[in-house]
Formats: sequence, structure tokens, C-alpha cells
Amino acid sequence: MKRIRLFTPGPCAVPEEVLLEMARPFHHHRTDWFKGMLKDATAKLQQVLMTKYDVLTITGSGTAAAEGAIVGLHPPGSKLLNIEGGKFGQRWGEIAQQFGIEVVRHEIEWGTAIDPSWIADALKKDPAITSVMVVHSETSTATRCDLEAIGKVCKQAGKFLLADCITSAGALPLRPDDWGVDVVITGSQKSLMLPPGLGFVALSPKAVAAIESNKSQHAYYLNLNKARKSALEFDTPFTPAHLLVRGLAKALDLLLEEGIEKVWKRVAAMAAATRAAGEAIGLPVFSKSPSDSVTALTPPAGITVKDIRNALEQRFGIESAGGQDRLKGKILRIGHMGAIDEMDTVLAVAALEQALYKLGHKLQLGAGVTAAQKVLAERL
Amino acid sequence: MKRIRLFTPGPCAVPEEVLLEMARPFHHHRTDWFKGMLKDATAKLQQVLMTKYDVLTITGSGTAAAEGAIVGLHPPGSKLLNIEGGKFGQRWGEIAQQFGIEVVRHEIEWGTAIDPSWIADALKKDPAITSVMVVHSETSTATRCDLEAIGKVCKQAGKFLLADCITSAGALPLRPDDWGVDVVITGSQKSLMLPPGLGFVALSPKAVAAIESNKSQHAYYLNLNKARKSALEFDTPFTPAHLLVRGLAKALDLLLEEGIEKVWKRVAAMAAATRAAGEAIGLPVFSKSPSDSVTALTPPAGITVKDIRNALEQRFGIESAGGQDRLKGKILRIGHMGAIDEMDTVLAVAALEQALYKLGHKLQLGAGVTAAQKVLAERL
Repeated sequence: MKRIRLFTPGPCAVPEEVLLEMARPFHHHRTDWFKGMLKDATAKLQQVLMTKYDVLTITGSGTAAAEGAIVGLHPPGSKLLNIEGGKFGQRWGEIAQQFGIEVVRHEIEWGTAIDPSWIADALKKDPAITSVMVVHSETSTATRCDLEAIGKVCKQAGKFLLADCITSAGALPLRPDDWGVDVVITGSQKSLMLPPGLGFVALSPKAVAAIESNKSQHAYYLNLNKARKSALEFDTPFTPAHLLVRGLAKALDLLLEEGIEKVWKRVAAMAAATRAAGEAIGLPVFSKSPSDSVTALTPPAGITVKDIRNALEQRFGIESAGGQDRLKGKILRIGHMGAIDEMDTVLAVAALEQALYKLGHKLQLGAGVTAAQKVLAERL
Repeated sequence: MKRIRLFTPGPCAVPEEVLLEMARPFHHHRTDWFKGMLKDATAKLQQVLMTKYDVLTITGSGTAAAEGAIVGLHPPGSKLLNIEGGKFGQRWGEIAQQFGIEVVRHEIEWGTAIDPSWIADALKKDPAITSVMVVHSETSTATRCDLEAIGKVCKQAGKFLLADCITSAGALPLRPDDWGVDVVITGSQKSLMLPPGLGFVALSPKAVAAIESNKSQHAYYLNLNKARKSALEFDTPFTPAHLLVRGLAKALDLLLEEGIEKVWKRVAAMAAATRAAGEAIGLPVFSKSPSDSVTALTPPAGITVKDIRNALEQRFGIESAGGQDRLKGKILRIGHMGAIDEMDTVLAVAALEQALYKLGHKLQLGAGVTAAQKVLAERL
């Protein structure tokens, strides 16, 4: 008997009722059935994303949604300031560059968050910048930035703010309309508890106007103008992955039943518990500004991330992630997204203790779980 | 008790075992599990597509796959001859145009097929043309072209041939390597018996070389170079809809169990039976070169396509399609793709008789079924 336990930072665990919902007999997509379903899912998505903005559904990964937004929002003459503190921040800079957008690629140390006042200064120094893009929760380094403060800065300066919320939406507090975020990008396979295959973009009215007036965009399939025109009639310009839309409505029901603010609180407690456990057993937290959707821990000297991951997987069926690119071998990542709850987190911590013990790491068995238990008891 | 019976030309009926396969517990996608699954699905896809070429899997619709191929294969200086005999042919011309590719958009009468010798002449007259794109089975008009003959023409002239095989692959005879087709584009939700969400591109070695040497392509997410580099290691550059890949392996098993040439024969018989039935009850076949994957019938005077479709849907749960754009209201389309067999086709013909009878059409009840039965008995 071996279970699969997904603690990866996406794809994440999908509730059984969502998987079974998608296995039911289905209709064609050019029907009132699909329109009703997309309408319903979109309204629920607005509730989960805490936004009144238009939310578009794209069949593709989060990168597809991000590309559509970056290309759509930047007609010739616009200039983008992109903050790069990890693999995904870098990717958005690459996309902007490849499509000939004038982009300032500002690299920061991996595992740190951009200082909002640095952005304020940069916008003062270079008034030609028309928009700013940040990663709210940088999955590759498990780091969160202060999106609310950055939103304030961009609002004051009258600039567009695009946010990669792929591993923040549905996990971390997010209030795009109040915070001045013009573009929210996310994907299905993280906190929204679906399999991969859908990307989402929320657009402020200002962002919609900018995309509508951009006549020179190099996008056809990922053209957000087309997507929005169809979305106004609860439809899509190209054949959508319609069973995932069906699953989406179901998964969002589960999140809304719990209450999205309660979900944020639970996820934050699970992350804090994992961080406390890591520190208690000698695996310090990597990030200087840790995200609550995924935790990166530094392995003890002499034990490789690969060995820990293998031990977790082989004995307990726990799938975790290592580091990417320059962080390869340097961090172990444990996710707090998807259909996992408090007790699953305690289980993961206990398994981590067992794995490390077998690998010869000196730790007091139970210390991690004890630390995690205390945090959960205090917070929830 | 009401069943859903999909006779639409995509999304098509998906076998229950495929839907349930996708509902099973699953792993993360950056694992040997996923690589093994993609390797397996790709090998089976090569068997179904009768090709030894590289086959790439894209998370997106068939249009996404087509855009990646069109943009990838046309560096500046190349010139594309695009044959447009319906909505999809038009779309590929639009994409080429939007991305600044020099394109000759040759329109033909909807419901007719291009004469291969016309292409031979056009290539002689304009040697600057480097590639030709055709729609093998134009879904919007239910029309098939002679891809084998067109392949011969392009091979002799030394031109690339791109074929939209979205509603032909897995339904109609297709031998890309023998016929000289360099790029085969298809999607998951037609004859491959999966829900929508994946697109596929098969590339000849010549096409691979052209895409590799094209440094100026306006594609990031849909960049086939990136997709191919990852595919060489049985991976994808961006998070794939990995449960659909799992379903794909299962669906292809079912097709290969039957034998792909037997599938072609069965689909051809189902289409011929439907055409014979249509003619027998006063609904003539629309296309002058009918495709076997979908049949377009002309409604009798005084009865609207909408009324027929509603009657089929409301009483029998049969979902069919009408015409698109200039063919709106002019044709009724009944598909022969997906998990439907001979007897489902007889059922659809019988239902069509019942619906027309109630709508006041003068027909001899049973005449359509009799005609269909004769064809099936002769052919299979």
C-alpha cells in the first residue's frame, strides 16, 4: 500500500471530487452548458481572486497566460521594468525581450524580495517606464514580495502593475483592486486545486483599455483581446480544455465553502509550522522573505537534497521539489498548495524527520513535529 | 433517462476508460513517471499517425499547435501558399499574415477541394514560394483534399508541405512520411478520443532543420524548437496538461488494438452510410469532395438546421453541428470521430429520420437506415 502525496509546488493535489467531476459524461463546448459553466467558474474565480476585474481563461500553462499579458499590454513605445529574483522572474524578462518590448531587467539576489521604495526611485529616475512586473510568490526561491506596497508605489506613479500570482492566488492574501494590481496572472495547477492545463488573467479596466488599443501585438492564440471579446459572451475564441473548466467550478466551490480568507490563514499557518519545524531540526529556511505557499529549507551538511527527496518519496510517497538552476542541490521545497491541510503538513514534517534520521542527520526525533504543532495551535 | 451522444466534429465522445484513467491518483510532472508516459504516448502517436517523424505535444488547442508550426517554419524571406476553402484554412492565412509572413492566400469555393495540379502550376509560376499549407479535412465544410497527390507535387517542387490534420488524423488514411508531408498538425479532441487541451505537431527532419535555423520566430510558449529540445528527453518546456497525456496513452491503446487501418475503414464506412442515408431521405451531401470524418448534409426546404439540431438534442441527446460563417443555417454536420461506432451511426440516422418526420419533412421512415445498413454490410 503506497499513497501518492503531492507536496510539490505545482502540480498539486486535486480533490477526488474534482477528478470525478471531470470524468462525468460531457457536452460539446459551443453550448449553453459550457457558457453557463464558464460564467459560473469565472464568477467564483473573481471571488477567490478578490477582484471585480475581467478574468480570462486560457488553455495552456501559466507561462501562456503570462505571455499573453506581457505581449498584450506592451505596444511599441512602452517600457517595462521587470524584477527578477528567481527563475520565473527571469522568464518574464526573456519573453519581453524576445518580443521586442523595451525592458529593464532588474536582477535581485535570489531568495530576497524587492524593496518597494527601490521601485519608487527607479520610476522617478526613468519616467519612460510605463509598467512594472513582479512575481508575487517566486516559486523557485519560495520568496514573497510586498505586492500591496508595490501596488501603492505604481498607483502613485501612474504605472501599470503586472503580477505573476501563479503560486500566490488562492494561497496568499491578494486584493488586486484595492492594491492597484492591473494584471493578475495565475494557473490551474497550484492553489486552485486543478490539474495543469489552464491559465488565468485578471485585467483592470485600465489594462483592458491598453490591450484593446494595442494593434501591433504578436499574439494570435494568446491574444487577450480576442479572449476578452469571447469572455464577454462567456465563451472562448479557441476550443477550451472544457473539462478543466468543469473541474474549476467544483474546486472553487470547495475553496469558497472554506472561505478564501480562512484558506489564506490556514496556508500561512501550514507554512509557518513547516518553517518552525525546519529550524527545529537543523534545516534553516532559505528565503529572507518566505512565501507561505511553498517553503524552501537548506539541507544539512553532508546530506544531499536528492537523498532526502528520494527517502521521502520511496518510503512515504511524498513528492517534494529540489532547487532549480543556481539553486540546484541547495534547497528542498515543500509546498502548501492544493488539497493538503494542517495534518498533511504535520505528516510531511514527521516524514522529513524519519528520512533525515535514516540518512544519519543528528536530530531529536519529534522536535520538528513539536515545533509545527505549537505553531498550528497558536495560529488556528 | 437521457444520454449525451456527441456527434459533433470535436470535442468528440471520450471512452469511459480514458476518463477514469485521468481521474486516478497522479504524480508530479517532473518525474520519470511523466517522462515514461510521454515517451509511451509519443511512440503510440507515431504509430497512429503512421510516421517516424518527431511528434511534439503542446498544451493548448489545435490552433496553438498550428500557430507554433506556421511561425516556426517561416523565417523572414520565406513565402507561404495557403489554400483556403473554409473557416480553418482562413485561420491559418490570418495567422501567417499577422506574424508578417509573406503569404499567398488562395481562396477556393467552400465545399470543394483544391486541384493538386493547380498547386503544381502555382509553384512553377512563383518560385519564391517556399512552402504550401492545406487543410486535409476542412471541418467547416466537411471536405477532404487529396493530400497524397499534393504531397507528391510539393516533393517534386522541393517545397515544404504543412497539413492541418486536426479532423483527419486517426480517421482518414494518412501516411505523412510516404506522402511528403513535412508538418502534420492535430489536436486531442477529435479522432484521438480525448477531451480538448492538447495539440500535436509531427515534423519531418527537413522541417526540424528549418525550425532550428529560424532564429527570428515570434514564439515563446508556442516555440517548437524549445518543445523539440525537451521532447528529445521526453519532457516539455512548460508545465503540460499531464493528465491528458495519461489519457492519451490509454486512448491510443484502444485505437491500436482495433488497428489504425481498420479504424480508417470503419470511419469511411460510417461516413458513406451517413451520406447514403442523407441522400435517401432528401438531405443531399453538401461537399463535392466529402471528408469521412464529418458529413455535411443540406436541410430540406422549409426546415431549419436549428430545428433539426434541437429536435435531435432534446429527444435523443444527440449533439450535432450547424454551419459556420457563410454556411450558417445551410448545413447540418454529423461527426464520425471519437468513441462512436457503426451502430451509433445507425442510431444517429434513425434519430434524424424521427426528427425530420416530426418537423413535417416528407420521407419514407426507415429509408435512411436501410441505405445506411446496405453500405455498412457491403463495406465492413
